[in-house]
Amino acid sequence: MKTPNPARRSERSRRAILSAAFDLVAEAGYAKLTVEAIAARAGVGKQTIYRWWPSKGAVFVDAVLSLSEDDTGGLSLPDTGDLRADLSGVLRAIVDEYNDPRLDAMSRALTAESLADPTLNSEITARILGPLLEVTKDRLRSAQRAGQVAADADLSVAVELLYGPIYHRWMLRTHPLTHEYADTVVEFALRALEPAH
Amino acid sequence: MKTPNPARRSERSRRAILSAAFDLVAEAGYAKLTVEAIAARAGVGKQTIYRWWPSKGAVFVDAVLSLSEDDTGGLSLPDTGDLRADLSGVLRAIVDEYNDPRLDAMSRALTAESLADPTLNSEITARILGPLLEVTKDRLRSAQRAGQVAADADLSVAVELLYGPIYHRWMLRTHPLTHEYADTVVEFALRALEPAH
Repeated sequence: MKTPNPARRSERSRRAILSAAFDLVAEAGYAKLTVEAIAARAGVGKQTIYRWWPSKGAVFVDAVLSLSEDDTGGLSLPDTGDLRADLSGVLRAIVDEYNDPRLDAMSRALTAESLADPTLNSEITARILGPLLEVTKDRLRSAQRAGQVAADADLSVAVELLYGPIYHRWMLRTHPLTHEYADTVVEFALRALEPAH
Repeated sequence: MKTPNPARRSERSRRAILSAAFDLVAEAGYAKLTVEAIAARAGVGKQTIYRWWPSKGAVFVDAVLSLSEDDTGGLSLPDTGDLRADLSGVLRAIVDEYNDPRLDAMSRALTAESLADPTLNSEITARILGPLLEVTKDRLRSAQRAGQVAADADLSVAVELLYGPIYHRWMLRTHPLTHEYADTVVEFALRALEPAH
């Protein structure tokens, strides 16, 4: 005989809310997202959402993060000792995300919104971009210890050598984003960062 | 005795229209810009505007370009033979533009609009970004001939090593944009691009 399980019911509601937020943004854009619409789609009351999240932006960022198991939006950066392979893996994964029409459309909509909405911009920078930049810096620090990256390289700039070119190409649609391109960016970045010889 | 001069009157109207478009976007954002509002502010008829431009986007891009004397939005890239100094000059000038509150606000508004408006995006890419990337590639080609840049370096990626990091930092507001930062980016890019040793 089954008894009600409040924890399981909560988790089910939470998942329904995140999934509703994600789908609504994919369908109509972030600007049109409302807490009311999320509640209606998820089959919960508005007060349930406000109990857990302060704003639609917070719900949505959680929805994006829930797509993956970790803190970096599903982008993992292992430390196999092979710096080129590890960086190439994460840059190729980003290229794949930008080439996914649904993720591309959602990322562009979110970028447009976050230009006009500082709260959303901070949520995204702090909770999605920030963790990715940090794990990348961790990986580069490990490469510094291994003598593969110059000890005095400014790692805040180093991560921008990796992600800046891809972001520029994606945002400005200048050329296609391919795995070959990701590898070229890694190659240039490694040369820029290598210890003096 | 003065006689009417239609060419001079045209030029006066053209300047009034471009200046009105620029000021209206600075005041209220590109989304609220209309050909009617430009005409009213410039003291001309709508038909005068439509005689010279197909859309508000085309007027606005001309307004931005009219701020400068050349095709690269005022960003010059001389060829003094000193590649580091030449690149540093253009990257510092971009940093200065992003740090100008009026240009920053306008660039963010335009970026947001162009994410939603493919026509505006194409106008900006073709007429503002494109020429800057081209003069930069020309400068790097000259450096290749001088043996300062690897002969086989992919120059489409090379320009992104220069502009991508700055664009990433500006868009995502991760760290301040300074001249020192511009110089660090140039330094990394030069190392990435130098001929094999």
